[in-house]
Amino acid sequence: MSHPLRKVLGSPRSIGELAEAIGARVVGDESVEVSGVASIRSAGAGDVVFVEDEKHLAAALRSAAAAVIVGEFAGAVSAGKPLVISDHPKLAFARVARALAKPGVANERGQVGLVHETASIHGSAVLSAGVRVDERVVIREGVEIGDNTWIGAGCVLGAGVKLGCECEIYANVTIYPGTILGDGVIVHAGAVLGSDGFGYVRDRKTARYEKFPQVGRLLIEDDVEIGANTTIDRGALDETRIGRGAKIDNLVHIGHNCQIGEDVVIAAQTGLSGSIVIEKGVVLGGQVGIGEHARVCEGVMVGGQGGILPSKVLRGKGKAFWGTPAQPLREYLKQLATLAKLAKKD
Amino acid sequence: MSHPLRKVLGSPRSIGELAEAIGARVVGDESVEVSGVASIRSAGAGDVVFVEDEKHLAAALRSAAAAVIVGEFAGAVSAGKPLVISDHPKLAFARVARALAKPGVANERGQVGLVHETASIHGSAVLSAGVRVDERVVIREGVEIGDNTWIGAGCVLGAGVKLGCECEIYANVTIYPGTILGDGVIVHAGAVLGSDGFGYVRDRKTARYEKFPQVGRLLIEDDVEIGANTTIDRGALDETRIGRGAKIDNLVHIGHNCQIGEDVVIAAQTGLSGSIVIEKGVVLGGQVGIGEHARVCEGVMVGGQGGILPSKVLRGKGKAFWGTPAQPLREYLKQLATLAKLAKKD
Amino acid sequence: MSHPLRKVLGSPRSIGELAEAIGARVVGDESVEVSGVASIRSAGAGDVVFVEDEKHLAAALRSAAAAVIVGEFAGAVSAGKPLVISDHPKLAFARVARALAKPGVANERGQVGLVHETASIHGSAVLSAGVRVDERVVIREGVEIGDNTWIGAGCVLGAGVKLGCECEIYANVTIYPGTILGDGVIVHAGAVLGSDGFGYVRDRKTARYEKFPQVGRLLIEDDVEIGANTTIDRGALDETRIGRGAKIDNLVHIGHNCQIGEDVVIAAQTGLSGSIVIEKGVVLGGQVGIGEHARVCEGVMVGGQGGILPSKVLRGKGKAFWGTPAQPLREYLKQLATLAKLAKKD
Repeated sequence: MSHPLRKVLGSPRSIGELAEAIGARVVGDESVEVSGVASIRSAGAGDVVFVEDEKHLAAALRSAAAAVIVGEFAGAVSAGKPLVISDHPKLAFARVARALAKPGVANERGQVGLVHETASIHGSAVLSAGVRVDERVVIREGVEIGDNTWIGAGCVLGAGVKLGCECEIYANVTIYPGTILGDGVIVHAGAVLGSDGFGYVRDRKTARYEKFPQVGRLLIEDDVEIGANTTIDRGALDETRIGRGAKIDNLVHIGHNCQIGEDVVIAAQTGLSGSIVIEKGVVLGGQVGIGEHARVCEGVMVGGQGGILPSKVLRGKGKAFWGTPAQPLREYLKQLATLAKLAKKD
Repeated sequence: MSHPLRKVLGSPRSIGELAEAIGARVVGDESVEVSGVASIRSAGAGDVVFVEDEKHLAAALRSAAAAVIVGEFAGAVSAGKPLVISDHPKLAFARVARALAKPGVANERGQVGLVHETASIHGSAVLSAGVRVDERVVIREGVEIGDNTWIGAGCVLGAGVKLGCECEIYANVTIYPGTILGDGVIVHAGAVLGSDGFGYVRDRKTARYEKFPQVGRLLIEDDVEIGANTTIDRGALDETRIGRGAKIDNLVHIGHNCQIGEDVVIAAQTGLSGSIVIEKGVVLGGQVGIGEHARVCEGVMVGGQGGILPSKVLRGKGKAFWGTPAQPLREYLKQLATLAKLAKKD
Repeated sequence: MSHPLRKVLGSPRSIGELAEAIGARVVGDESVEVSGVASIRSAGAGDVVFVEDEKHLAAALRSAAAAVIVGEFAGAVSAGKPLVISDHPKLAFARVARALAKPGVANERGQVGLVHETASIHGSAVLSAGVRVDERVVIREGVEIGDNTWIGAGCVLGAGVKLGCECEIYANVTIYPGTILGDGVIVHAGAVLGSDGFGYVRDRKTARYEKFPQVGRLLIEDDVEIGANTTIDRGALDETRIGRGAKIDNLVHIGHNCQIGEDVVIAAQTGLSGSIVIEKGVVLGGQVGIGEHARVCEGVMVGGQGGILPSKVLRGKGKAFWGTPAQPLREYLKQLATLAKLAKKD
């Protein structure tokens, strides 16, 4: 079990050219060529590494890396390797990685513009230029797919599904009929988009549940990323909407009619029941649970395993909440401390 | 991104005919034809809407809907559109939706009675009349499928699986060998039914875990609905059973040997470890966790994120429990209030 | 719905031969032949059952089972059936079940050495002797698969994936490029291995999130079992590692760069964010949540729904923790008791 760790490997490019592309400056030899990114401890020749905290700079300089992205703090360092100076080294590193990545090496996309012979594509579907469709994909009536989008093996796209440009849909994803994705959406393997919401009406006479119609749709805006095996239900009668730039981790559940704002971050295994509003810029930790019709206002943060009651509204940009039922972080910590103190005395 | 919202659209039927079919009466023009269902705010011509609360009646009458389903409270209203009077408008609405839905429009079922040429079906499998099998389905030895059941693309049915009539199995579902489903069962995409339970025996000498046999089966009774990416394990030596009419949301986990009663409702991300009994009519909120050998008695409700300890028994029809460990709701709320008060003083 | 329960059924073997194979001794007729395992209440002719607690011995002897595995306590019992005496009856039973199981009966593996004609296998992939590849599997460039490994229908193995010998990969599993599995690994249906971690960098100017490179890998050591629809992310730049013999239940999430030790047990729906260390022999209950960079030291146990804060270290072999934030079990129970007492007085 001693296989070397694989890296992003693109064609070698000079560090000067890369720095210019991302708007940073180089101290040292701009002609040094790099072809991958790495952590300091695993870096090899040709790799770029980054340092956010000055205390790691010496280790980065000692490593086998070809170049180091650093903050302004390192501007005056004399080093044996070129330094890329940035006011946000981690962001610069992410952008260098993206600039270096060749499709088909950094991810599974492989060659664009190919439709595998084992894919089943309805005659009415419209595939734009550069679309890649892998093995055993099923594409039904009226589906439209934008430029350069990749559909991984085993995916099933129901009737009327529309995907924008430059999307990456990993293997074995199921997209229910009528679901709409914008541009640049990434969906990881096994995710289910647009499934029926969990809505029933109980017949008072028989005490049995009957299915409430789940015939709305799911709309996912541009630049959303959705984790593996996450499930997002379509609206019951109206729409579930995931806002531009939202990032959703693995095994998250989002119920029918939820409205997720732009740039919202939702960590793994968090669950939202129906008709919830999560405003712009909210951050939800892992395993958070939210009851129906609740609202989390712009910029609020909720700690892991926090629970928000149905119809509750949490307000306060930059304010953190924790616990079940979720309370302002400071108050909740105070309660935990009080309880610990009382228990010790008891 | 301005695609109109899709609706259930069947062949137009008169509101009088529909009302008769569901046992309701019409006030107004019975000959008005309708073809879809909608919420009040999205209703268009030809749609039926419903009003449960009198305060929404005016909006419904102002909407573009063709007809409104209302409670007895509206019996005397003079309106420009026909009213369907019902003592349970939401239930009546659900039934009208079902009456209007044509297979193939409201869901993915499409045309019945077709077996796609890319499906792999063992020669010993028995498919009854009207069974539809979609692309790339794998059906193994001894499988039996009842009338009019639909198997979505990419599903894998292990040896000896038996499905009843009128089931809907969405795409990419995996059903382990020997699993049995009754009639009218709906299984959403990515669900895994009958997987091995989580059972090991630790060898005291090596401190290593060895697999305990997981060779029982999973039995799912009629009219159960199972959410996307939910997992239900088969029994270790005996049986896991999901009772008639149980409704199970997305990403739920049900462990080996659990016995789920009739008309039980389990919200998303709830997890049951092994050998748990959930009696008839229980409602479990989202993210509830239950330890092995616990029992939740008939008609109990457990709030979201509640935790029930192993071997614990919760009793009381209509009684609500909350918290971890789960306590009667009133007691738990009292504890929360007491703690908040003490922390403020502290 | 009265289908008989299916059992493990191998070729009949004498109880004497089986006892010898597992290092136990027989009291009674060693020539009795058995072919399956069962619980006491469902046992039929030809089945072996086991008794761990003396109080169940009489029921076992009354059952239809052909033989009973018992502890030393039963050494002197005079019974109508052969007894297999073991100092760990449950372990002996598990081993008898394994000895009896024929591939293709106990699980879905079926006949070894067959590659289904509908599988898509890249010309550069290397399949060792006895490998079985089922319908519609996709195997990409550079994949290597060890002896007698089984790949279930609909699985997708990305470029450079390496699997050891005797692995069982159930249907519809997706394995991202570069993921490495050792020998004897079992992966249940719908699991996603090696997906991108949840890592972004926020651009302070635009307030938008950009993807941090997720180009490390996932390494899974020998004898690990992974539950249905579980997701394990690859390292961001380095490695996510699952140690030898770890047992992971359904719907578990393990984030990027986590290091899971040998013989760790993780129950269903537990979630680990990034860069967490779980040392050897740790047991995590269901729905546990752990924050990034936390460490759970050797032999610690964490109760169901427990929450561990980021960067927290839990120490103490054999010590149990519970609650959120997780505290030593005794202290936490004391707090719960104190609160209940105060609320009653309040």
